[in-house]
Amino acid sequence: MGERLVIIGGDAGGMSAISQARKGAPTLEVTVLEKGSWTSYSACGIPYLVGGEVERIEQLVARTPQQFRDRDQVDVRMGHEATAIDLDGRRVEVRDGDRTYSLAFDQLLIATGGRPVRPPLPGIDLAFVHGVQTLDDAAHLLRHVESEGCRRAVVVGGGYIGLEMAEALVRRGREVVVVEQGPQVLGALDPDMGELVTAAMRRHGVDVRTDTTVVGFDDGVVHTDAGDHPADLVLLGMGVGPNSGLAGEAGLELGERGAVRVDRRQRTSADGVWAAGDCCESRHLVSGRPVHVALGTVANKQGRVAGLNIGGIDATFPGVLGTAISKICDTEVSFTGLSEAAAAEAAFDAVGVSVRTTTRAGYFPGAESMVVKLVVERGTGRLLGAQIVGGPGAAKRVDTCATAITAGMTVADVVDLDLAYAPPFSSVWDPVLVAAREATKAV
Amino acid sequence: MGERLVIIGGDAGGMSAISQARKGAPTLEVTVLEKGSWTSYSACGIPYLVGGEVERIEQLVARTPQQFRDRDQVDVRMGHEATAIDLDGRRVEVRDGDRTYSLAFDQLLIATGGRPVRPPLPGIDLAFVHGVQTLDDAAHLLRHVESEGCRRAVVVGGGYIGLEMAEALVRRGREVVVVEQGPQVLGALDPDMGELVTAAMRRHGVDVRTDTTVVGFDDGVVHTDAGDHPADLVLLGMGVGPNSGLAGEAGLELGERGAVRVDRRQRTSADGVWAAGDCCESRHLVSGRPVHVALGTVANKQGRVAGLNIGGIDATFPGVLGTAISKICDTEVSFTGLSEAAAAEAAFDAVGVSVRTTTRAGYFPGAESMVVKLVVERGTGRLLGAQIVGGPGAAKRVDTCATAITAGMTVADVVDLDLAYAPPFSSVWDPVLVAAREATKAV
Repeated sequence: MGERLVIIGGDAGGMSAISQARKGAPTLEVTVLEKGSWTSYSACGIPYLVGGEVERIEQLVARTPQQFRDRDQVDVRMGHEATAIDLDGRRVEVRDGDRTYSLAFDQLLIATGGRPVRPPLPGIDLAFVHGVQTLDDAAHLLRHVESEGCRRAVVVGGGYIGLEMAEALVRRGREVVVVEQGPQVLGALDPDMGELVTAAMRRHGVDVRTDTTVVGFDDGVVHTDAGDHPADLVLLGMGVGPNSGLAGEAGLELGERGAVRVDRRQRTSADGVWAAGDCCESRHLVSGRPVHVALGTVANKQGRVAGLNIGGIDATFPGVLGTAISKICDTEVSFTGLSEAAAAEAAFDAVGVSVRTTTRAGYFPGAESMVVKLVVERGTGRLLGAQIVGGPGAAKRVDTCATAITAGMTVADVVDLDLAYAPPFSSVWDPVLVAAREATKAV
Repeated sequence: MGERLVIIGGDAGGMSAISQARKGAPTLEVTVLEKGSWTSYSACGIPYLVGGEVERIEQLVARTPQQFRDRDQVDVRMGHEATAIDLDGRRVEVRDGDRTYSLAFDQLLIATGGRPVRPPLPGIDLAFVHGVQTLDDAAHLLRHVESEGCRRAVVVGGGYIGLEMAEALVRRGREVVVVEQGPQVLGALDPDMGELVTAAMRRHGVDVRTDTTVVGFDDGVVHTDAGDHPADLVLLGMGVGPNSGLAGEAGLELGERGAVRVDRRQRTSADGVWAAGDCCESRHLVSGRPVHVALGTVANKQGRVAGLNIGGIDATFPGVLGTAISKICDTEVSFTGLSEAAAAEAAFDAVGVSVRTTTRAGYFPGAESMVVKLVVERGTGRLLGAQIVGGPGAAKRVDTCATAITAGMTVADVVDLDLAYAPPFSSVWDPVLVAAREATKAV
């Protein structure tokens, strides 16, 4: 009999570990406990399901439980919820409907994911308030959106998910209000860049209320400190926290924002117990600090590294830049590394430099405006972060910045990069290079 | 009176030096000799002018002679051709129509550009054979394309310019044959990738004849070793060589493919004489060898570095990866670094790894096929080159590869890169990362 691996959670962080673990340990016996109805799905695709661009919920599933069973010889237990972990006894307590049982493990991978932030506001548990994290949540939300009489929606919080959901609801013909506590949407961006996104949302017909705090809900109404908004549906877009209660109760060390603490091999504080994905923390490659970044890209990478180590093959996950991208109402937005604010908080002497250019050669049909902002350390000129807002083709350029930051490049190094140019794609100096040139003058 | 700088050539390599030179030498007196009718224009935009996407030739001009005169106090002499350089006497011989004169310089910047390769074939000087390099050439070509009876075009050579011109002519409703001597179009790509482009051209209605050599021209006919093609117009797309005759005759050292030899400061073999742009060579960042790369991006960067040094501010141009991108018949193509063939020639023990993925999440509307090929050094895993062919959004990812190559990253380093993901932009593992993962298995 092979070693027994139990995985708690059937999405990216957990399932991506399986094939990697078997590389080193082909006889590994794998059991997956998933409390919901789906495995390996694209939660990032949910807004496009709600918006109607993706037609069927099944399209978001990369691999079904049956595929894992048939192709990978994995014992996938759907609807089974892990309720406790006994680290000393090496067992997981499991609930399957009315039945409970105990499952022994040699190694354990905790991949319990994230959960939408739900502040304890009056009325937040009313049925018309949705927090969307899983495909089960999505199916529930979709039925509500498509139901008779769902005309007005309020999105609470202007993070990426909130804004993508706002766009989806506008696409469905709903009236949408976004209520954001801060002075701008997308708080990860610096205010000057966030303002560009707020403006784009408004041009698209979304009623964005910044500097406004939700104080509670009653049936059909969202109460804010600046008045009431009638609503047939409320979406929580206040970010995602780690779903780490189970790990914490078992006595595993928690870190940043309550996420499971892991080392670079995705090992938790307990021997033979690993964590990956939205439930655990990462190291920020620029600040060096632990951070909680709930993104599918990171979950997949952490799951891969956890799996390799579980199978006995040494692998490390160096960390994250928090790189993110979104298309919101025809405006593209992306981010990587540190914002000016985050750089200051991490005690960097940094300066932000923005340039406004075009997505293509200025004379080329379809050229649209784009703004690149670079955050740069004074003195050294080291690139610390980048933010991009602009028309089609603008935002994926953030990958160039992420690569340069990872390599420790200065903005002078970036100026010298041999980036691709042709009129349908860029100006002869790519916008990233234009920004880097400008930044060399500022540091 | 300030020091006298003479610039030969009024396009990117020359004109981009002016403001940079004045940073260190504000009183510099600048004279530009341009034998044609235009300054600072986008030669790369010519195919889009021919194709009708750009309506007026003036749109391709970034800055007119008069703007240089008025804003930059530059003595721009249009229609003046430098005919000889006297290095010892520090003078340039100039022809202006019937008149000739001699112009003294303290410093000289040679920016004479490139010229289309024109093999000495019978009939190549016939009026219906066009080599397109300057806006004057473009204006001439455009009149021909738009003339009565121009129905059939033959493009000789399947390089980037040839293929972009072929697309432009198809867009104009002309019948187009591309005759390519080699087994594939875009010889910079490895055959497996070039084949994808050949197939895309054919799907688009271009009659591509590979392994076919043009042997001569007669009025209305292109003769090849595989038969004749009737043609109302012939376009030479056989690449661009350095226009370095003037420099060579003056005794300046020439290097790779006859291009003016320069050091990292763009200094030629003669003191106070500089060169920039398509007329001079560059150093390849991977092979370390001198190369001739005729691209606007490089010309602009070299002009900038030459200018700074002319003004007494130390600056260096580290070199090129030959990064190029093109949109050809709705297929995007890009390239950076070394191909498998070039790596072998440069004595690397390299392997090429290709993956076929999609431009967006597979379930997202508009997701199209794309192929990424990475060229990797065996043993070290160092990334040496990348090639991308695919649908909209595919090719600009080459910038990520160019940045990684410049930083000396291995494919294992690339796997760890925190690249941006959202369903409209990418799969959760960006195609570049998928290729890098595959490559880690091969090296």
